[in-house]
Amino acid sequence: MAKILAQGVFQTESLPCIESYGSVVGKKEGEGPLGDCFDRIVEDSHFGQETWEQAESRFQLEAVRIAAAKGGIAKEELGMICAGDLINQCTGSAYGLKELEIPFLGLYGACSTMAEGLITAAMFIEGGFGERAAAVTSSHFSTAERQFRYPLSYGGQRTPTSQWTCTAAGAAILSREKGACQIVGGCIGRIADMGINDITNMGAAMAPAAAETIDRYLSATSTSPADYDLIVTGDLGKVGSALLPELLSDKGVDLGGRHTDCGAMIFDGDSQDTHCGGSGCGCCASVLCGHFLPRIERGELTSILFIATGALMSPMSLQQGSSIPAIAHLVHIKRR
Amino acid sequence: MAKILAQGVFQTESLPCIESYGSVVGKKEGEGPLGDCFDRIVEDSHFGQETWEQAESRFQLEAVRIAAAKGGIAKEELGMICAGDLINQCTGSAYGLKELEIPFLGLYGACSTMAEGLITAAMFIEGGFGERAAAVTSSHFSTAERQFRYPLSYGGQRTPTSQWTCTAAGAAILSREKGACQIVGGCIGRIADMGINDITNMGAAMAPAAAETIDRYLSATSTSPADYDLIVTGDLGKVGSALLPELLSDKGVDLGGRHTDCGAMIFDGDSQDTHCGGSGCGCCASVLCGHFLPRIERGELTSILFIATGALMSPMSLQQGSSIPAIAHLVHIKRR
Repeated sequence: MAKILAQGVFQTESLPCIESYGSVVGKKEGEGPLGDCFDRIVEDSHFGQETWEQAESRFQLEAVRIAAAKGGIAKEELGMICAGDLINQCTGSAYGLKELEIPFLGLYGACSTMAEGLITAAMFIEGGFGERAAAVTSSHFSTAERQFRYPLSYGGQRTPTSQWTCTAAGAAILSREKGACQIVGGCIGRIADMGINDITNMGAAMAPAAAETIDRYLSATSTSPADYDLIVTGDLGKVGSALLPELLSDKGVDLGGRHTDCGAMIFDGDSQDTHCGGSGCGCCASVLCGHFLPRIERGELTSILFIATGALMSPMSLQQGSSIPAIAHLVHIKRR
Repeated sequence: MAKILAQGVFQTESLPCIESYGSVVGKKEGEGPLGDCFDRIVEDSHFGQETWEQAESRFQLEAVRIAAAKGGIAKEELGMICAGDLINQCTGSAYGLKELEIPFLGLYGACSTMAEGLITAAMFIEGGFGERAAAVTSSHFSTAERQFRYPLSYGGQRTPTSQWTCTAAGAAILSREKGACQIVGGCIGRIADMGINDITNMGAAMAPAAAETIDRYLSATSTSPADYDLIVTGDLGKVGSALLPELLSDKGVDLGGRHTDCGAMIFDGDSQDTHCGGSGCGCCASVLCGHFLPRIERGELTSILFIATGALMSPMSLQQGSSIPAIAHLVHIKRR
């Protein structure tokens, strides 16, 4: 039984372990500063498929396959897989994972999906619903551009605050017993809407949600940033990462230089022309599974907060004049 | 700790209760055979809002408000709310629920969302992540028609196998202690894709998923349909409901006349011109919360299986030539 610290804030008792994990990224992500850490780099943005949407499905499936293979885990051993993505009706997940025939819970958390999935899988394990559960998510530059912005062939100019949707997927398999990384606690995000309606400035829309979630977890656990090796946000990018310390400072929280952001890490903005950094569900999922979990396993890190942030608008909601609601879910991961 | 009966099949130990619930439907649903059972009928399909999408958000919020008010439950007492809908990026849920400021998990299960939400909320309660959790979902005829089929003003002719997306929402609040209805077990669906690609025949696409889930639960619990008062599917409609007994018969399961379907119940097909019945996430959510849970509470039913079915395609995936993957989640609800 988990311990309830505050509304939506919990500490696990069974300490679900991340038994195995996998990451797959596209060519551009493979050429970035973290290129060496991913399990697989797929040069072909179509991944051998006819459409980008089908390619994204393949990225997701491949991430699960790698995670399962690395852990020697058969699909029958997974009690549940939870997944989501940005494509309308989350078809990246449904089509990608259907052949696995694993009991499936579809999520929609936009770019917060990896943390939402880890929380959902942790609930599944902690509650005794199965011995193992997987969380996976993906994004694809070309599916997202077409759907949220412009057709690629239009050649639209990108604004300085824009982020580059990563072509990437990450999968983590949780279990009761095995694995060096443990999910010891977490915080389910609340939807925060600060009235921002600039679709090319997601970092600004998401930073308040990240600040609220981090503050809520620190308050409920009576801890401060100094108690963690790193506070890793999903994809606030450069703008959102600059805002976060200010927003937390207003709440009396000093990040003390312990903050880093997956979106700001995955690309070299200057040489890769990605402006404010990476984004998309697959960004922080692949960076968590390619970079941070291995670092914890190697003992380079012992305790991190992983906060994936998502913007919950749609192209239509913005066309209708609504602002951008955002959410951030937090998972506290410790070395066993 | 739940008891694992098979992959994705569980029995709860804490027996999460449905403490309170609410249903809100549109004018047409209110004029149907179940009209008297819903908590509120909203005649205005815009629900006082500027757009149908905003109206759908209001339906969802209103269902939660009614459920909370009926139970005398403050929003601070809800540890988590999980929700989803059919609108791209699930904006019906995000915009509808943001003002509640309750920790939020976004789901995407198409019309299976109510059962997925009940399972997720049950996991939350069983695992001790909070004292109370809510599950809510909605659909709206006009948002769905525009997005999945044709603009309403086009006046497209409906096929005989088509179903009518309900304008409706249902919300259930689960808790550890109170409530006459208990979630004693469940089965997380697997994605089933039988190669059907007719978007106007969802019943046929979803029936195999329902059959697989029902069979899996009956097998794992060593029970038969005769052990339940009713086996209630989400919205298979008339075509899917006719297929289900055949599909289960092939698996050696005789439904024995105990099957009923929310989609087939909510409208009078002859007088309301709804062809094969109702559909949409809000259909079975409102029928569960307006009709079945009260019947259990009154003692008219003591044990039902509630199986919400969803089709996981998108307009784009069909345009790209893919068939329709479907899923069905099952919740076993018993009178306390």
